[in-house]
Amino acid sequence: MALKVYVDRMSQPSRAVLIFCKINGIDFEEILVDVLKNKQFSPEYKEINPMCQVPAIVDGRFKLFESHAILIYLSCAFPGVASHWYPSDLFKRSKIHSVLDWHHSNLRRGTVGLVFNSILAPLNGLPSNPQAAKEGEKLLVKSLGKLEDYWLKDGRFLVGSLQPSIADISLVCEIMQLEFLSEEDHDRILRPYKKVVKWMEDTKKATAPHFDEVHRVLFKAQKRIRERMATESVKNKVKSKL
Amino acid sequence: MALKVYVDRMSQPSRAVLIFCKINGIDFEEILVDVLKNKQFSPEYKEINPMCQVPAIVDGRFKLFESHAILIYLSCAFPGVASHWYPSDLFKRSKIHSVLDWHHSNLRRGTVGLVFNSILAPLNGLPSNPQAAKEGEKLLVKSLGKLEDYWLKDGRFLVGSLQPSIADISLVCEIMQLEFLSEEDHDRILRPYKKVVKWMEDTKKATAPHFDEVHRVLFKAQKRIRERMATESVKNKVKSKL
Repeated sequence: MALKVYVDRMSQPSRAVLIFCKINGIDFEEILVDVLKNKQFSPEYKEINPMCQVPAIVDGRFKLFESHAILIYLSCAFPGVASHWYPSDLFKRSKIHSVLDWHHSNLRRGTVGLVFNSILAPLNGLPSNPQAAKEGEKLLVKSLGKLEDYWLKDGRFLVGSLQPSIADISLVCEIMQLEFLSEEDHDRILRPYKKVVKWMEDTKKATAPHFDEVHRVLFKAQKRIRERMATESVKNKVKSKL
Repeated sequence: MALKVYVDRMSQPSRAVLIFCKINGIDFEEILVDVLKNKQFSPEYKEINPMCQVPAIVDGRFKLFESHAILIYLSCAFPGVASHWYPSDLFKRSKIHSVLDWHHSNLRRGTVGLVFNSILAPLNGLPSNPQAAKEGEKLLVKSLGKLEDYWLKDGRFLVGSLQPSIADISLVCEIMQLEFLSEEDHDRILRPYKKVVKWMEDTKKATAPHFDEVHRVLFKAQKRIRERMATESVKNKVKSKL
């Protein structure tokens, strides 16, 4: 029985796991857990992941959640995975663990704080916290600075590597979440970080054509959101003139 | 040259790394980075960890930060470490990665949010956010529930193990940070979670006498903080009667 991968492509760690499976030719079945419809709270999904989050995998009788743990598991469990994704060299591997751990409380927390509170919550009628959005942006900008000056200082990919690892896929998918912002905000935040922008392009190329294919649903959502925001902005301008 | 371990025992991940080194008989030199005196921002320490946080290690020419990455590195780099701390079995190891990843955005974030904003920030004259303390407590309580009902459901230690792993040390050291709260708040929050309390005791026993020795500085700080809070509470009562 093929590996089962429970995901919602709107979630950044879900996309990371999907891209990893596709680029490595892993035979898997993608199962949608529609987060906007609260399917992650269904009793069936709670049996897979009691934390009610995506992604999760089921490989035979083995269940696993948390995307970094999943990426490491897949790298070790499937012999076809090239070694650069999760090197067996202890020093290289440890640096990958370090950047993945750092990601949790920095880049991820910043991005989620900003995008959820400024865009996703208001659009979906959920309570949002403008102060949390502001703090999210601050942490995101600080994290982008650390990526530029430290994590990407020695190589084309993270932690001085010439080839991508699971950390590159994970972190680039996270930053892709900024596509939900207005074009102006997106460019204002990302443009100062030349190495980050170049590294994102390199990671996309290294995982083509799967990267764009898996992100298609994000770009569709982005188009809808930006159109809606533009319409609301015009409405507000008309109102302010009346 | 012995392994260098840069820590402040007031920090929970620092204590986890120290206890791990001691229980496994690893030869190391402990170097204090006094966080209350902002020594983590010194140019010398920035060379060790540009993120300006403790703990970090230097092993020969190899530098590493992020406590989970350090614990994994030490488990692999020192042959004397017993296998239960970080099992080589892929399924067991993956579950340990999963609980460590979960820890970042749940138990850790909850504990830090509560303890920093309700106790450490006001005591040290730093800006605190009562709303963040409230949200921290909510996330902490939810995380304790998940520990009780899921992570500890099948064994004496995390993820169904009969012997402790690096995850047990890491998570128990985190919960020990609640010792900074008043006795009343500490008991109110922890008491409902019988399995969690039992597991903490079991982890302390499994790492004795190092657990208590490394936590001594925390208990001293706890005594001072509780005395100060009691004095301030008496003062406030007198004031309210005037």
